[in-house]
Amino acid sequence: MDTRFAADYFDAHRGAVLEEWFELLRLPTVGADPRRLGDCARAAAWLKKFLRPMGFEVEIVSPPSLEGERPREPLETERAARGDTRPPVPVLLAERQGERPGMTVLFYGHYDVQPEDPVAEWRTPPFEPSLLDGRVYARGAQDNKGQLMGFLMGVRALVEAGVPLPTLKVVLEGQEESGSGVLTELAPSLALRLQADVLMACDTSSGPGRQPAITAGLRGVQHLTVTLTGPAHDLHSGVHGGVAPNPAQGLARLLASLHRADGSIAVKGFCDNVEPPSEEERAMAMSGGGTEEQYAAEVGCPPWGGAQDADMVTRGSFLPTIEINGVHSGYGGPGSKTVIPSAAVAKISARLVPGQSPPETFAALVKHLEAHCPRGMRLAVSDTYGGAPGFRLPLGSPVFRLAEDVLGRMDARGALFRWEGASIPIISTLRHISGAAPLLVGFGSEDDRIHSPNESFGVDQFVHCMTWATLMLDALAS
Amino acid sequence: MDTRFAADYFDAHRGAVLEEWFELLRLPTVGADPRRLGDCARAAAWLKKFLRPMGFEVEIVSPPSLEGERPREPLETERAARGDTRPPVPVLLAERQGERPGMTVLFYGHYDVQPEDPVAEWRTPPFEPSLLDGRVYARGAQDNKGQLMGFLMGVRALVEAGVPLPTLKVVLEGQEESGSGVLTELAPSLALRLQADVLMACDTSSGPGRQPAITAGLRGVQHLTVTLTGPAHDLHSGVHGGVAPNPAQGLARLLASLHRADGSIAVKGFCDNVEPPSEEERAMAMSGGGTEEQYAAEVGCPPWGGAQDADMVTRGSFLPTIEINGVHSGYGGPGSKTVIPSAAVAKISARLVPGQSPPETFAALVKHLEAHCPRGMRLAVSDTYGGAPGFRLPLGSPVFRLAEDVLGRMDARGALFRWEGASIPIISTLRHISGAAPLLVGFGSEDDRIHSPNESFGVDQFVHCMTWATLMLDALAS
Repeated sequence: MDTRFAADYFDAHRGAVLEEWFELLRLPTVGADPRRLGDCARAAAWLKKFLRPMGFEVEIVSPPSLEGERPREPLETERAARGDTRPPVPVLLAERQGERPGMTVLFYGHYDVQPEDPVAEWRTPPFEPSLLDGRVYARGAQDNKGQLMGFLMGVRALVEAGVPLPTLKVVLEGQEESGSGVLTELAPSLALRLQADVLMACDTSSGPGRQPAITAGLRGVQHLTVTLTGPAHDLHSGVHGGVAPNPAQGLARLLASLHRADGSIAVKGFCDNVEPPSEEERAMAMSGGGTEEQYAAEVGCPPWGGAQDADMVTRGSFLPTIEINGVHSGYGGPGSKTVIPSAAVAKISARLVPGQSPPETFAALVKHLEAHCPRGMRLAVSDTYGGAPGFRLPLGSPVFRLAEDVLGRMDARGALFRWEGASIPIISTLRHISGAAPLLVGFGSEDDRIHSPNESFGVDQFVHCMTWATLMLDALAS
Repeated sequence: MDTRFAADYFDAHRGAVLEEWFELLRLPTVGADPRRLGDCARAAAWLKKFLRPMGFEVEIVSPPSLEGERPREPLETERAARGDTRPPVPVLLAERQGERPGMTVLFYGHYDVQPEDPVAEWRTPPFEPSLLDGRVYARGAQDNKGQLMGFLMGVRALVEAGVPLPTLKVVLEGQEESGSGVLTELAPSLALRLQADVLMACDTSSGPGRQPAITAGLRGVQHLTVTLTGPAHDLHSGVHGGVAPNPAQGLARLLASLHRADGSIAVKGFCDNVEPPSEEERAMAMSGGGTEEQYAAEVGCPPWGGAQDADMVTRGSFLPTIEINGVHSGYGGPGSKTVIPSAAVAKISARLVPGQSPPETFAALVKHLEAHCPRGMRLAVSDTYGGAPGFRLPLGSPVFRLAEDVLGRMDARGALFRWEGASIPIISTLRHISGAAPLLVGFGSEDDRIHSPNESFGVDQFVHCMTWATLMLDALAS
């Protein structure tokens, strides 16, 4: 397989390929928002139509369609009991019998995207893809619609050229950004159908200077919303100042209690079983880590978050975190409004590393919040996601060796190993039920600004995804 | 003067009086919002039209109209230099020669209102007054349009009946809720015009059980907005968690640093010169203070804010405060969005008591914020209002004796003295330039929910304002 094969295909079909990618980007598939359930269903249907001409059998599964297998009510009841009010976004399952049936590849991707807010900060409409200076701007342009479409376009190039392929299974979901609820529920019933040798996903990033990277570990994630309530309604802060408890102040104190002054996590029991990385893992991670100056230039501030006694690579790859994702209380408009707010809300998420058990850390976090609830206020925890564990993969596996060869052909610098701080919780689940070895290679970059306004993906990065798919699938079929 | 005089007038003219009050309430006079400048100008014009038939000479003054007196540019430049971007909301000045010219009363009121948000929590439209069960619901229904219209309706009842009055000066402004910028600027040039013996305002509350109250002191106020900035844009909290500084966390820590664990103010120098109340003041305040249980029943939470070693009356009347009026950062929608926010903003206001110098406490607060700025982040202070001092008035003055007599006629329980925690900063200024003795009697109640959604004012309270005006002005003219 020539390393130019995918790029040649892209050049020959550029207009059509971009238009198909853009069609998917135009669907505002915010999987966490019940109002966008219809758009998510449309995206699943669109992907089905995209995959079938390549020889895939495709099925769209959503909880109500499970009625035949198990009664709907228990599932709904179970979801409600967990406080899960997320919409039942459909999952797409596809399978293409290979010309080299000895090897089965399971490809995972997600067609849902992060919410587009703050909308005012977008320079182009978030759901109208704009091609500017070789980059496509849209919510999901990279994460994950861009990377998954790049990969699948590589598959299409191979299929159209009649290149012999391994058996390909595809699972695409619409809730990765909000906890993969439906797919996690379906997973046990799909164990047989998803058996595979290699589990590929194209949802990660390259290393510094865009050197190709194999992600050898991910952190787990869990999250919750905490609400502090004081007065029954907003109060005049002159009349009541010094008398009524102030939830905005109480929340500040509560959130500040989660970390010590040195930035380390202060939640009792949260970090008890953290497994440190091996010397090899630490050394490889450090070699691809970049400098503080590079980080500051890219991100706009120095990398001084987290525990002060650890280096930035260790903090970003091998240590857990508790982060505040949002805080809202009281007045936020122009000028001033002298109120004591009735309530204050914070969105909190944690990242977990190997050794930490999600149920145990979640319980420790909730216990800490309850124990530190300021006097005179009521605390409520809602919108909880108990989460997924982190993992690290053995570095010497045959699949990693093959991937290193392929990435060495794509880039003379060869491949880095990375331990990303981000999470793809469903990867842990799919790894268990499929029995496959995860192979996480993606071509994201900090410039892509995923989860932020003005998310984008370079056309060159898109072609890298295609190239990676063609070379690696060809290598696996050989 | 009969105590029923005002109520009889109201009963005879009920429809017309309510409609005039409602006309004023329909104007969305949020003085802090530049988009509402036109509505503020319309309110000033409406009040002019309301006052002239009673024999008042009326002038509407706004900064541009001062061109004749002093050049406009320095004023604008001065405002800009202070970072004052508030709109130049007009001030209304009126004067009615009295039939008893030996005594001059200066009446102060404000026609501006607090912002109406959160709009969704209003059960009736905030600028469409609704009369329900004897209460008028609207933003400003009480504060201050209801109380000032009640007072001025009392004046009209006296004028129409031909009752001899003292000389009446009226100053109505449209920026009380945002710092009285224009009136404070104009004040020095108005010193001669506003000379008076008594300075009346109807912008305070009754005591527990609606017992009439004379406000013998007010706290001062100052406020600012603080913004912490970290990354140049929102970041993925998995990729960057533990690496990038998190402004939402940093702000929590910064705000928590303003108070000690026992609730007392931790800002160095802020409380240095606080003058404690006299034994008489403390005893009188305690007698009108109510219990913790009454407070909890009224407000929906126990009165456990502020410093834990002081009782609730002392904390609300005689101690300074620093309160967080709002905090906003990152995601606040449904579900979760795993970002590290680029910035976090807090609205902070302080209440000051006698002995504290506003410039000194303001400097101490800013110095504290800067000294505690979390590492890796930038701190900016904006939207500042340097503020006004607090004051307490001597209890034995002749005006207070007269007011006690009048209120004793209105209510057999007699009058309480109160030291309100709220502020009317311009009262200090007007007191100085007019040479008048302040007499602050109002008929507000906790139920009125001023500054909150569903603000309201009882028609009975409105009539009390009228009655107070008729009895007290008649007494002063005698």
